[in-house]
Amino acid sequence: MPTLRLALAQVNPTVGDLAGNAAIVVDRTRAAVAAGADLIAFPEMMLTGYPVEDLVFRESFVAASRAALRGLAADLDAAGLGSVPVVVGYLDADGPATISAAATPGRGPRNAAAVLHGGQIVASYFKHHLPNYGVFDEDRYFVPGDTLTVVRIAGVDVALTICEDLWQAGGPFAAARRAGVGLVVNINGSPYEVNKDDVRLPLVQRRAAEAGATIAYVNMVGGQDELVFDGDSMIVTADGTLLTRAPQFGGHLLLHDVELPAATDPAPGTATTGTASAADGSPEAAADGLTVVRVHLSDTVPAAGPAGERVDGGIAERVTDEAEIWQALVLGLRDYVNKNGFRSVVIALSGGIDSAAVAAIAVDALGPDRVVGISMPSQFSSEHSRDDAADLAKRTGLDYRTEPIQPMVDAFLANLSLSGMSVENLQARVRGVLLMAVSNQEGHLVLTTGNKSELAVGYSTLYGDSVGGFNPLKDVWKSLVWKLAEWRNADAARRGAQPPIPENSISKPPSAELRPGQLDSDSLPDYAVLDAILTGYVDGDLGRDDLVAAGHDPAVVDRVLRMVDIAEYKRRQSAPGSKISIKAFGRDRRLPITNRWREQSE
Amino acid sequence: MPTLRLALAQVNPTVGDLAGNAAIVVDRTRAAVAAGADLIAFPEMMLTGYPVEDLVFRESFVAASRAALRGLAADLDAAGLGSVPVVVGYLDADGPATISAAATPGRGPRNAAAVLHGGQIVASYFKHHLPNYGVFDEDRYFVPGDTLTVVRIAGVDVALTICEDLWQAGGPFAAARRAGVGLVVNINGSPYEVNKDDVRLPLVQRRAAEAGATIAYVNMVGGQDELVFDGDSMIVTADGTLLTRAPQFGGHLLLHDVELPAATDPAPGTATTGTASAADGSPEAAADGLTVVRVHLSDTVPAAGPAGERVDGGIAERVTDEAEIWQALVLGLRDYVNKNGFRSVVIALSGGIDSAAVAAIAVDALGPDRVVGISMPSQFSSEHSRDDAADLAKRTGLDYRTEPIQPMVDAFLANLSLSGMSVENLQARVRGVLLMAVSNQEGHLVLTTGNKSELAVGYSTLYGDSVGGFNPLKDVWKSLVWKLAEWRNADAARRGAQPPIPENSISKPPSAELRPGQLDSDSLPDYAVLDAILTGYVDGDLGRDDLVAAGHDPAVVDRVLRMVDIAEYKRRQSAPGSKISIKAFGRDRRLPITNRWREQSE
Repeated sequence: MPTLRLALAQVNPTVGDLAGNAAIVVDRTRAAVAAGADLIAFPEMMLTGYPVEDLVFRESFVAASRAALRGLAADLDAAGLGSVPVVVGYLDADGPATISAAATPGRGPRNAAAVLHGGQIVASYFKHHLPNYGVFDEDRYFVPGDTLTVVRIAGVDVALTICEDLWQAGGPFAAARRAGVGLVVNINGSPYEVNKDDVRLPLVQRRAAEAGATIAYVNMVGGQDELVFDGDSMIVTADGTLLTRAPQFGGHLLLHDVELPAATDPAPGTATTGTASAADGSPEAAADGLTVVRVHLSDTVPAAGPAGERVDGGIAERVTDEAEIWQALVLGLRDYVNKNGFRSVVIALSGGIDSAAVAAIAVDALGPDRVVGISMPSQFSSEHSRDDAADLAKRTGLDYRTEPIQPMVDAFLANLSLSGMSVENLQARVRGVLLMAVSNQEGHLVLTTGNKSELAVGYSTLYGDSVGGFNPLKDVWKSLVWKLAEWRNADAARRGAQPPIPENSISKPPSAELRPGQLDSDSLPDYAVLDAILTGYVDGDLGRDDLVAAGHDPAVVDRVLRMVDIAEYKRRQSAPGSKISIKAFGRDRRLPITNRWREQSE
Repeated sequence: MPTLRLALAQVNPTVGDLAGNAAIVVDRTRAAVAAGADLIAFPEMMLTGYPVEDLVFRESFVAASRAALRGLAADLDAAGLGSVPVVVGYLDADGPATISAAATPGRGPRNAAAVLHGGQIVASYFKHHLPNYGVFDEDRYFVPGDTLTVVRIAGVDVALTICEDLWQAGGPFAAARRAGVGLVVNINGSPYEVNKDDVRLPLVQRRAAEAGATIAYVNMVGGQDELVFDGDSMIVTADGTLLTRAPQFGGHLLLHDVELPAATDPAPGTATTGTASAADGSPEAAADGLTVVRVHLSDTVPAAGPAGERVDGGIAERVTDEAEIWQALVLGLRDYVNKNGFRSVVIALSGGIDSAAVAAIAVDALGPDRVVGISMPSQFSSEHSRDDAADLAKRTGLDYRTEPIQPMVDAFLANLSLSGMSVENLQARVRGVLLMAVSNQEGHLVLTTGNKSELAVGYSTLYGDSVGGFNPLKDVWKSLVWKLAEWRNADAARRGAQPPIPENSISKPPSAELRPGQLDSDSLPDYAVLDAILTGYVDGDLGRDDLVAAGHDPAVVDRVLRMVDIAEYKRRQSAPGSKISIKAFGRDRRLPITNRWREQSE
């Protein structure tokens, strides 16, 4: 059996940065070639970044992606890296977008993979299965492929597939079995969800069994707006053995020597690089309507496998849920800040758990020099709140300031007749104006600190504490905020480092401190109860009766559901944040604002 | 030929208000029956409202829609209206949503039409063509139908179709021809776009020719979040003759007597109401894979047509573009306010054209008693600005107040070190806080007044003048704001009424008045130039080179495109508003925030 040294480049592209992304490919290919790789694979839509959304409809962008691919092939060859095949995702098109009057059925933009070799694009493949649920909208953008591309590399037949192709039975992987391939390369832009790594491995194993072939799964890593890609690249054999697996949330070049079956039939025609020939009537391939396109690169099997020692990529250890989520939040924030060109962030520090957690995430993501924390006490702020905020600043080393809001609040109150909730909201809005003024003056990105429970029930002030360009906790239930804070502190203690979050911020009862003695529990059920109901209603799409049947107090269920339904309006205007579960408020939760439907009895 | 009196109910449902929508059906059916109608049709998704978005994933909502349909059939019969067939759109499902683990291929939620008769649901049809572009996401939500439903009514074979089915050749309308129907009922939730009425009639004519049958096209009317449905219901014969057409933007019961061909083959089986029988192997129907389900309601042809005088629905006159757009903006605002249960709105009046136009739209939508206008002068506000705002208030009769912002601005300036743009933005944000305080205290919805040109280039203050829950001008280029204002004044003058908008607000050069002597032209190209470039770039997806080739100054193009690309971030957080062109910022413009792609050379 030939032994191939595979290199899976788990890298972090940026949407729209065609030149920068191509440079990453050249750099990682250089490293892989130096390490003796026989085949190198990069993630889905590597050249453009992912997802590109409506940029697909801009013909100039499609043209730029295609030009960048040709340029990349030439650049790799010019750098002396042309002899090793490179699989890379990009945006292609064989016709105008389907929204165009000039559209042709079956043609249009394509989510594509190419094999680059010898300075040429020697093969390409168009994704078959286009996800159109949750955060995915690929039916809007792409036309599905109907061809399987098989490339003979070092005597092994290798099939190309992309992301969602892996999640569907009976598709390209079944066709790959009939085409008799030894390896399926699957390139991904697969966003992180809680415990998604627990789903991925069994899925890859099932598909490897279906294909009867080893699968090389490579995923991107990094934050893109509300999405976080976690990497978790791996190689799994046809019998389900996990050979190697990369860690999540970091860049990684996963190198592993894999024994693969030699192709049994000599490929037809001459082995001219860059010449694709359709299979000569393989009946298996024809059976499901999939045409197989075979490309012959090389029959030269590495004599005794790659030179030197056997390379083993190892199997990265899995971490706890809290560690995984924390890393996702840190990576999502870091990339949002850096990729959008912000130098620093500013956070309102109340002394409470949410702002403390956001500050700790920000310091982990950017370092203390790039984080400004402002305490903005009012007449209702307790002494312990100010102390806890100052303590947090001391523990983390962030740039700490205090700006009392009472003079500005008083100026409004002197000129307007306000009472009750209006006065409470006014304080939050004065803080918002203050944060934005500092942001404008000094160039920081404002971070919002509202957790998912608050956002769900509307327990926040529109244009007040909801002000900000990014919200790390947007998709984190309050109960989980506490767990994460405890985990982060314990993890620091384990490492002999300073726990960043004041114990008092974790243990004290939560309060918005917008009126004397106010507590969250005045307005909301206990967070354990609240979050259990919200998880069912928001994440699970359970109805009112389902929630009652699950044992919740009907009166509390009705109260919570009414709060959520009324809060939809606020949520539509909240800032984007990192996504860590399958459903979040934001891009993938699409509900009418104008809606009279109510689960609960009125 | 049988003559049938058709009734097309152009009505205004509310999303989620199943009981209220059913009550509309009963009420309009009563009116149609009283007028002697033989067949009554209501719009797409009549019972649930449209679009329901992710409510589809809530099983309890699907169950409620199905129950409401059964209840409606019974209620119509109980009200003595059971003898006339009623076509009504609703949400159905024959399996769990496709995102569910329990999903079955080919089954799931359905965008459906039912025929109600004799207290029963006697026929149903599932939409074939699911639009998934622009404002539509139906591939996410629905499973397409593959059956044509033909109902024998008063001796005429009637096929059911839904909305997008009309926009595709070779689908149900071609099948309807092979099934030999005399009438195709097409029920719609078709949103308004500028000049869409000019597209609809030729489209209905083409499809009528394809079907070889008369088409009864009924569309909903009313605002739903960012969408405005304009009605424009009509009946067109197979030879393309427009028989009758309803006005846009208002509720209407369109009644018209139509001669239709008697069905030539007696329908098979007994004519039992509610019994559906598959066609006995019609080869035409089988040819394209569409099964035809035939339901036999009645062969009784009205002897000499409906009793009494011939009823002619007339052909509503078309209006100018400006009149059409103004009505769309008024309707969109009125329904957003009323359907969301707001009593009144509040608007910041600067004396400029945008706030004057919004105030005039609001007064037309709600009446002057439901509109509060607040002038919030600063030290940079000119005397004419205050005069123009007061003049507008006098002309329209809205509730007018003045709240100088200098004391609050000074309080911030005394406590913070701000300069330049930060001070300009501070003024806008103090106005935002003031508006929200009044909104909280008195319950008004805040209207935003930024036009589409400003939003496109980011010429606004985040959390300042962008504060608000609805923006009537969100999708209106600045050049069009002027045209609309001129049209509205001229129209008033024609009717001998008071023109609402001060001439000075229209004629003076626009200024944000955030620093001494500031003019929009300090920061932006002339609006005629700007809007021409923006229309190409935003609405037309033209690239930089296309715009230069179209004759624009390359330096200006580069400058404008850079402003747009940088402004994407602000736009993501702007308030929803009415949609009046095929592309708008908001739900249907989906661009990555994090994006390095630039059209212009750097």
